[in-house]
Amino acid sequence: MDNTQKPSGMPIHKYRPYHQQLTVELPDRTWPDARITAAPRWCAVDLRDGNQALIDPMSPERKRIMFDLLVSMGYKEIEVGFPSASQTDFDFVRHLIEEDVIPDDVTIQVLTQAREHLIERTYESIAGAKQAIVHLYNSTSVLQREVVFRTDRQGIIDIALEGARLCREFEKRIPETKVFYEYSPESYTGTELEFAVDVCNQVIEVFEPTPDRKVIINLPATVEMATPNVYADSIEWMSRHLAHRENVILSLHPHNDRGTAIAAAELGYMAGADRIEGCLFGNGERTGNVDLVALGINLLTQGIDPQIDFSDVDQIKRTAEYCNQLPVHERSPWAGDLVFTAFSGSHQDAIKKGFEAMEARAVAEGLSVDELEWAVPYLPIDPKDLGRSYEAVIRVNSQSGKGGVAYLLKSDHALDLPRRLQIEFSGVVQAKTDAEGGEVTSEQIWRIFTDEYLPSNVEEHRWGRFELHGTRTQSDLAGDVSLEVSLRDGDERVEATGHGNGPIAAFLSIMRERGFDVSLYDYVEHTLSAGGDAQAAAYVELQVDGERLWGVGIDGDISTASLKAIVSCVNRAIRTRQSTAELAGV
Amino acid sequence: MDNTQKPSGMPIHKYRPYHQQLTVELPDRTWPDARITAAPRWCAVDLRDGNQALIDPMSPERKRIMFDLLVSMGYKEIEVGFPSASQTDFDFVRHLIEEDVIPDDVTIQVLTQAREHLIERTYESIAGAKQAIVHLYNSTSVLQREVVFRTDRQGIIDIALEGARLCREFEKRIPETKVFYEYSPESYTGTELEFAVDVCNQVIEVFEPTPDRKVIINLPATVEMATPNVYADSIEWMSRHLAHRENVILSLHPHNDRGTAIAAAELGYMAGADRIEGCLFGNGERTGNVDLVALGINLLTQGIDPQIDFSDVDQIKRTAEYCNQLPVHERSPWAGDLVFTAFSGSHQDAIKKGFEAMEARAVAEGLSVDELEWAVPYLPIDPKDLGRSYEAVIRVNSQSGKGGVAYLLKSDHALDLPRRLQIEFSGVVQAKTDAEGGEVTSEQIWRIFTDEYLPSNVEEHRWGRFELHGTRTQSDLAGDVSLEVSLRDGDERVEATGHGNGPIAAFLSIMRERGFDVSLYDYVEHTLSAGGDAQAAAYVELQVDGERLWGVGIDGDISTASLKAIVSCVNRAIRTRQSTAELAGV
Repeated sequence: MDNTQKPSGMPIHKYRPYHQQLTVELPDRTWPDARITAAPRWCAVDLRDGNQALIDPMSPERKRIMFDLLVSMGYKEIEVGFPSASQTDFDFVRHLIEEDVIPDDVTIQVLTQAREHLIERTYESIAGAKQAIVHLYNSTSVLQREVVFRTDRQGIIDIALEGARLCREFEKRIPETKVFYEYSPESYTGTELEFAVDVCNQVIEVFEPTPDRKVIINLPATVEMATPNVYADSIEWMSRHLAHRENVILSLHPHNDRGTAIAAAELGYMAGADRIEGCLFGNGERTGNVDLVALGINLLTQGIDPQIDFSDVDQIKRTAEYCNQLPVHERSPWAGDLVFTAFSGSHQDAIKKGFEAMEARAVAEGLSVDELEWAVPYLPIDPKDLGRSYEAVIRVNSQSGKGGVAYLLKSDHALDLPRRLQIEFSGVVQAKTDAEGGEVTSEQIWRIFTDEYLPSNVEEHRWGRFELHGTRTQSDLAGDVSLEVSLRDGDERVEATGHGNGPIAAFLSIMRERGFDVSLYDYVEHTLSAGGDAQAAAYVELQVDGERLWGVGIDGDISTASLKAIVSCVNRAIRTRQSTAELAGV
Repeated sequence: MDNTQKPSGMPIHKYRPYHQQLTVELPDRTWPDARITAAPRWCAVDLRDGNQALIDPMSPERKRIMFDLLVSMGYKEIEVGFPSASQTDFDFVRHLIEEDVIPDDVTIQVLTQAREHLIERTYESIAGAKQAIVHLYNSTSVLQREVVFRTDRQGIIDIALEGARLCREFEKRIPETKVFYEYSPESYTGTELEFAVDVCNQVIEVFEPTPDRKVIINLPATVEMATPNVYADSIEWMSRHLAHRENVILSLHPHNDRGTAIAAAELGYMAGADRIEGCLFGNGERTGNVDLVALGINLLTQGIDPQIDFSDVDQIKRTAEYCNQLPVHERSPWAGDLVFTAFSGSHQDAIKKGFEAMEARAVAEGLSVDELEWAVPYLPIDPKDLGRSYEAVIRVNSQSGKGGVAYLLKSDHALDLPRRLQIEFSGVVQAKTDAEGGEVTSEQIWRIFTDEYLPSNVEEHRWGRFELHGTRTQSDLAGDVSLEVSLRDGDERVEATGHGNGPIAAFLSIMRERGFDVSLYDYVEHTLSAGGDAQAAAYVELQVDGERLWGVGIDGDISTASLKAIVSCVNRAIRTRQSTAELAGV
């Protein structure tokens, strides 16, 4: 079988292999035999490197939400801004310190270039903090020396040393703050190793590290330029050549230009690094910083405690999406909407058998399933451990020529279902059509959809414990919304009032009073463009008494549509419970 | 500085490190010293592994578009389906063969389980093809042996050998087709290496490979279970132990559960593999197959011809998004909307200096810039080589407390700008406000937006060569739309008629007749939900005489809105050219 591939005509003459630009040689490397056995020190840079890469940088409100998220997950070192470069960043650092929202065991980190007025401003920003890491950087690469700084190696060293010395000076102005140091030879991956180590070692001498006050040396793959083993080689080389290595915390900061940042971080950590800087879901410049969620959960799958709480990955995702105003992709490791799905019959069959085998083993050993080692084909982790459900056992029914369920709902009814609802509804369609077999028509799908999510008002088809008859909202414009609803609850008619920061929160509080443990997981709305009417569709994902599911509401008023969606969801939860109970003969 | 990280409470007791489950030991590995010097054989599995992982599997029309795309890019081995498992797949394979659309130098590949009736059906599907690869698989992992097949090693070997022998039998039924073989020990990463090589070697004997008819042994990371160096070790080990190695094409098939599939493919290739299976943009089961676009362009950045044409990566992306009905993420390597942006001032400054240095060098050496080695900080590749523009030099202006430009347009005017338009418009805002400085208000942004994209009808503010006065469309329901427009062209009033598969195509043909070289790059529309009116917004990205830019149209009729957007775009192109000419004193 001949290889018939042909030259592409792409301009390869413009590019030179990395090894012809820079030498990284380490034939006696040891990292390929190393194994990761404990979590690194993490540093989350979402509020700096992540934020600076957003089309719309975070507002102070979003920044605060991100900071609180990172703290709640367990991150102890958080880069919160570049205060000397941005007034917004400066104000945010002051806000954190003055409002006293930084826990005692959390250290904020601030970035600064090695220039006097910037350094001075940086120390102004952190005054009053219990402790802080001042992160000093200057660019050291061959290319930046030539085209940006137009200076030689000594010139670059001078910039770094002058910066470090100024830090030591300004440090004296804020004696109440414990200042630690981080130095980055920025564009490290474009720098000759012997020069990088030279700069770092000279800076280390200025910072005078001790066991109590180690210095962080951060080696950024500012641009990812080679396969990740080359980065690992370079880290092992640096680790061998750094001065005062015992008092240096060697830190990695991989970017993802080639799509191998996670690997670079892992191999670099095996090569002797102590610490990793990254962002949730790989936000950051261009293709992003390394993805902290992937790195952390990768550890968990090896029985290693990431020291970060990922038990509700959807909540983390939703918050990050809100702050970054960027979606997390459907296939983003461990967190994307599709990563625990299995659409092929043979995968599903194997997954089912895996679940059954675990249950049998649990019975045989007199243990609960959660005490056993996880062993289910195609599911490298128990989705439940991340707060996800067993989407894996849901299969899309239609391989029909006309396209799938979501496509038909969109083209025929202008409904644009969120991804997780698509998955849920595909399972509903499957359950209803498995018995009959064959192709599913668009009408059938619509009938199943309305029957499942949009309770009929026609007397004989009426289902669902709740029905919405009327609403009245009142807002004090200070963030509190009061909602009065008129409801049918079973055969009873009730009037109820709830409060919250919006009608949805207010309505959920009403549902809680009626005995449901409900919390909001996702909320999406859109107008229906088909037909030109002004109807809106709302989709809510709730957790109702421990079960996660979706509801849908359609109405001319978007606010009413969202309340209808909550009703739809709660009714579905009750219905599911009833049919389970019936099946069990309860 | 103490490490204050704490145990997370995540259930680490449920997970065991990979090295305690399976042994991969290769202390004398050679791959870390290897360097990639040529492209591997590629096999695109978008139509099988990619397709089976979609909520909505591709329709035959979308499948055909994907097949044609892969062929046009230069892929020579294309897995087109699992014909024995799906009638749709079977029909598609027949379509390709009967319509004679497979180029002579392209080999289709079909997947089959090692079961008699499935193998028989597989051979029926490929009858009449000039050549085909029959891809036989069965699962070999410890876990699947235990819980799915409940058999021992010999039982698994028997399944594989029986399948291989049946292949040789059925092969005789289609003597006119040159059949090649691929065998996959599925769930290879969960299989003991010595068992995997045993199965493979026994299967190889049945297939009797020769130099002219090599056998492909494909080693899938069906589930990615360890750091990528472990996969590479395993590949080097297998490469050393496979029988008839000279007549075996060793193939990789990495999945991306841990986010390291690209690294696994690269390190595995360095470890001795010959071939890589993957999908465009990493579509595929769960977190996806390895991303063929990233792998290919990674080669290009090292001066290695990928033997695949990536010169219009946006076109490739758009087509893949259409076929998969899944977005390519903003930060997807080399192709995401944000990967050539730089929002930080220091990055932009360095990029500008890099461009200037290249221009100066070109002048000094008497060459064109395109003949030089690419060397611009923060841009590891020339975006132009992928058909992209220099988005890198655009900076978002507003770090304002109220959120950015796109956010304000959405919240105050219900306009949901596509990502690339957000980037373009941020540049416009920047240009208009740089002089003034300070914070930009929402009103200013709206004024800049309307002035730039929505030509005013007010006489004194009128701008733009074209203005739309009326339209009439007629469709023959057979795919041809005829469009009559009444236009102002300068001070002239014109009536013009165009044809196309829709009003947009028809209007572009009118513009072409008027002397513009226009082609469509992207098109997005939505209704405006704010205010409850039924207005629609349309956004088009065109290439006009070599320049890529956006236009916007708002109208009660969605079709008219899209034509207005084209007018907006063409007017902007003319305006840009005029102001450039004015600046140049032409």
